[in-house]
Amino acid sequence: MTNPKPLALEVCFSPQLIPFTGIKTNVAVVVVDILRATTSIISAVANGVESVIAVSDLEEAKEYKIKGYLVAAERDGSILEFADFGNSAFEFQNGKIAGKPLVFSTTNGTVAVEVGQKLGEVVLGGFSNLSALAQWLACKDKNVLVLCSGWKNTFCLEDAIFSGALVEQLLSTELFTITCDSAFASLDLWKVAKTDVMAYIEKAAHRERLRQLGVDDVLGFSFQQDTTTVVPVLKEGRFVRA
Amino acid sequence: MTNPKPLALEVCFSPQLIPFTGIKTNVAVVVVDILRATTSIISAVANGVESVIAVSDLEEAKEYKIKGYLVAAERDGSILEFADFGNSAFEFQNGKIAGKPLVFSTTNGTVAVEVGQKLGEVVLGGFSNLSALAQWLACKDKNVLVLCSGWKNTFCLEDAIFSGALVEQLLSTELFTITCDSAFASLDLWKVAKTDVMAYIEKAAHRERLRQLGVDDVLGFSFQQDTTTVVPVLKEGRFVRA
Repeated sequence: MTNPKPLALEVCFSPQLIPFTGIKTNVAVVVVDILRATTSIISAVANGVESVIAVSDLEEAKEYKIKGYLVAAERDGSILEFADFGNSAFEFQNGKIAGKPLVFSTTNGTVAVEVGQKLGEVVLGGFSNLSALAQWLACKDKNVLVLCSGWKNTFCLEDAIFSGALVEQLLSTELFTITCDSAFASLDLWKVAKTDVMAYIEKAAHRERLRQLGVDDVLGFSFQQDTTTVVPVLKEGRFVRA
Repeated sequence: MTNPKPLALEVCFSPQLIPFTGIKTNVAVVVVDILRATTSIISAVANGVESVIAVSDLEEAKEYKIKGYLVAAERDGSILEFADFGNSAFEFQNGKIAGKPLVFSTTNGTVAVEVGQKLGEVVLGGFSNLSALAQWLACKDKNVLVLCSGWKNTFCLEDAIFSGALVEQLLSTELFTITCDSAFASLDLWKVAKTDVMAYIEKAAHRERLRQLGVDDVLGFSFQQDTTTVVPVLKEGRFVRA
């Protein structure tokens, strides 16, 4: 098979499937957790945080708090008593985090970050930084692997349609060739969803979970495109502005 | 969430993701490997084979041959010298297997069968037995988990669109409720694909592999619906007619 476009583009629907992806070298890994970790961390970086440390363990978050860090942590829709913020993207828009490091507790997102950083440079993707991320990736001369955090390691619709939106933008640069079926599927799902994303996502399992927790106020923001141009990249274990 | 339809319906895109599926009890597992294991084994059962033993290991297949079994095994598009048949569905239409057990070598399919049988009753699904399978499942009063074999544990389009076709038929019985995002995604992909399945599948990675091997003659048959009414079920390690 001849391949006129030199860079490979793949999507992985779960951190559990990373060992079986085709891209192994020279890779930028886009970690996606639309509801809500990556959308929220992008929001924090856009609002001037110095850096974000993602942790999966609440005990670890608590230890950071004791050391004096600002901490975002919630369970079942409520801010934990030791934490400064919940996990919603709206928490970081009031200037309180500017210039400071933030510890962000996220189970699904942290798994993906830990798996992704073994493969290559990790960046965070969300609808809020979609076009800026695509432009940044187009300048890197690297293969791109979009890694969906999913829900407890399973496929989730919101991460898949974001992957499709990013695939669509990356293909338009004519630098990339899709080299796996997941990327084609993501693109097709995005084409179905994009005419009315909010209506499409009504059926997503996680959307229902958020409704039950009473924390779905941030839903519209999570699917709003290009509200920022920041691209958070992982440097020495912390997400900083690229 | 109220649930007027009592039975759960899920799709799993890879055997690797089985530990994370929601359905754990009272389950019929539909193993899918459209290109080509399940399509071929359904063909063998439809053509009167006594039973089919799926094996992943060529050495194991060879041992069965020494014991006197008929064996279907190929690598890179060629029948292996010790085997009686290749892996194409067309191999079993000449009556040579009638009334005899057959050993069928399949790497991806066998992984799925081994994983699936730990969860519940295993049946094989393909476009060739789609409607018969849906009817059979509708009478079982069991939750249904559609397990895609995938390609080396990754998502593949042909298994996903078949899953969507089966989900569509099962939903029409009004007995099932979708309880995972993969099932919604499969259904949406099927709705995109179904107006021209052969055109849709042109982009599938495995379709290209088959082209390169020169064994894509069976492709049209693999996507042809309802050419048989047999439903192969796993009984004591062998697939037999339900």
